Amino acid sequence: MNSRIKDSFDKQRLMNTLGAELLYADDGKVIITCTLHAGLTQQNGFFHAGVITSIADSACGYAAMTTSSTDGEVLSVEFKINFLNPARTNKIIATATVLKTGKTLSVCEAYVHDETEQVVIAKMTATIIHITTR
Amino acid sequence: MNSRIKDSFDKQRLMNTLGAELLYADDGKVIITCTLHAGLTQQNGFFHAGVITSIADSACGYAAMTTSSTDGEVLSVEFKINFLNPARTNKIIATATVLKTGKTLSVCEAYVHDETEQVVIAKMTATIIHITTR
Amino acid sequence: MNSRIKDSFDKQRLMNTLGAELLYADDGKVIITCTLHAGLTQQNGFFHAGVITSIADSACGYAAMTTSSTDGEVLSVEFKINFLNPARTNKIIATATVLKTGKTLSVCEAYVHDETEQVVIAKMTATIIHITTR
Amino acid sequence: MNSRIKDSFDKQRLMNTLGAELLYADDGKVIITCTLHAGLTQQNGFFHAGVITSIADSACGYAAMTTSSTDGEVLSVEFKINFLNPARTNKIIATATVLKTGKTLSVCEAYVHDETEQVVIAKMTATIIHITTR
Repeated sequence: MNSRIKDSFDKQRLMNTLGAELLYADDGKVIITCTLHAGLTQQNGFFHAGVITSIADSACGYAAMTTSSTDGEVLSVEFKINFLNPARTNKIIATATVLKTGKTLSVCEAYVHDETEQVVIAKMTATIIHITTR
Repeated sequence: MNSRIKDSFDKQRLMNTLGAELLYADDGKVIITCTLHAGLTQQNGFFHAGVITSIADSACGYAAMTTSSTDGEVLSVEFKINFLNPARTNKIIATATVLKTGKTLSVCEAYVHDETEQVVIAKMTATIIHITTR
Repeated sequence: MNSRIKDSFDKQRLMNTLGAELLYADDGKVIITCTLHAGLTQQNGFFHAGVITSIADSACGYAAMTTSSTDGEVLSVEFKINFLNPARTNKIIATATVLKTGKTLSVCEAYVHDETEQVVIAKMTATIIHITTR
Repeated sequence: MNSRIKDSFDKQRLMNTLGAELLYADDGKVIITCTLHAGLTQQNGFFHAGVITSIADSACGYAAMTTSSTDGEVLSVEFKINFLNPARTNKIIATATVLKTGKTLSVCEAYVHDETEQVVIAKMTATIIHITTR
């Protein structure tokens, strides 16, 4: 696992609040999971769309970061997410990959699956900007 | 305030986890705010995009619900959000309005402002489906 | 080739104006191509984003139609498209597939490639509504 | 009217093919119209979504260009468009404004109205990149 990404993920305190875990981050692919607990639900007891979106967004940003040649950071410029099936599951798994790596902008996609990995709950497309820091 | 929406909001346990508050919900307009605390940040200590998105998403859904003629529920079909300025603020304010009310689908927009209400942090467009329940 | 889709495509007079051709339409997959001519360009002589988007949109709608169990029509509810590489090519090829088939809504994706089929020029995600006609 | 934009618009040969006209381009606002003719339709004789999208896209790009401090060009990074009402009209009017002006990226929005200017047919949000040329 990419250690810069591990460090950054640990600083994303929202991930800790949601109970999200970084499973994989390398070579243009990032996997983040989240297990359901009472504090993550919408009105019917399923995962709130905001939780699904939060882990997909983080996964997309870090996927772009794995392919960046610089030491800089990444920020989400924008994303779009479609909700395809109800999140009737105890765990969600966001898997992000890089569609296009650029010097300034990268475009990533994430699938969010249920715990069986058979049902696609959501699909995100995100535009990420690479920021030079020092 | 629309009491059906107040009840539904209270059941969205994620809103409680984030510390979000429903300020207004009537006539096609919904306002939800959230005050920064350590558990809501990204790696630099600002509001995580996931928090901004979560309250904007809930605001859009409930805005659609205020204009619905039925007793049904609403679900997000998809949304897109652009992040326009850094979320360097202690409070974010999501204000959603309805762009188009339909029987099956409605389209809503939300602006997320900083605590001064002068800086637009993000802009969302959401497609909402009206579900008949009984 | 699905004959209902062939008929509908022929009635889409914009496709004729653009010189677009329907290559394939069956089982959740649709391919539409378009060859460059002087009337299709943006200011630098490449394919205008509007042409790329037009054939991707038609491809997504028809992809949804191939999987519909009814005789109805399809309409685009919304779509999002990312432009990934310059359209420096004499032909664009839009290939749409179905991500999720629903009774009311389907979600489709389209890749637009250059003539070598090696370069992804654009990626679209579209929400399609199935309309019952008689 | 901004003459650089007028010149660029005239070079966008697709605009000529569609019969689109640039009505206004200044101070962060651009208006492009298009009158229906047989070559612009979808299968039911209304404006094809591709035409609506093409003029909205050009309007968003030029709106960003009016607020740019450099002599550079603009390119669409991505856009999302929602179709809100059927395009049962003889003329469509795309009005784009700038939501956020940045050095690298700008975000613009466009409404596409019918000929009465009372019905919103579509709403676009576009991310535009400013390219330095010499």
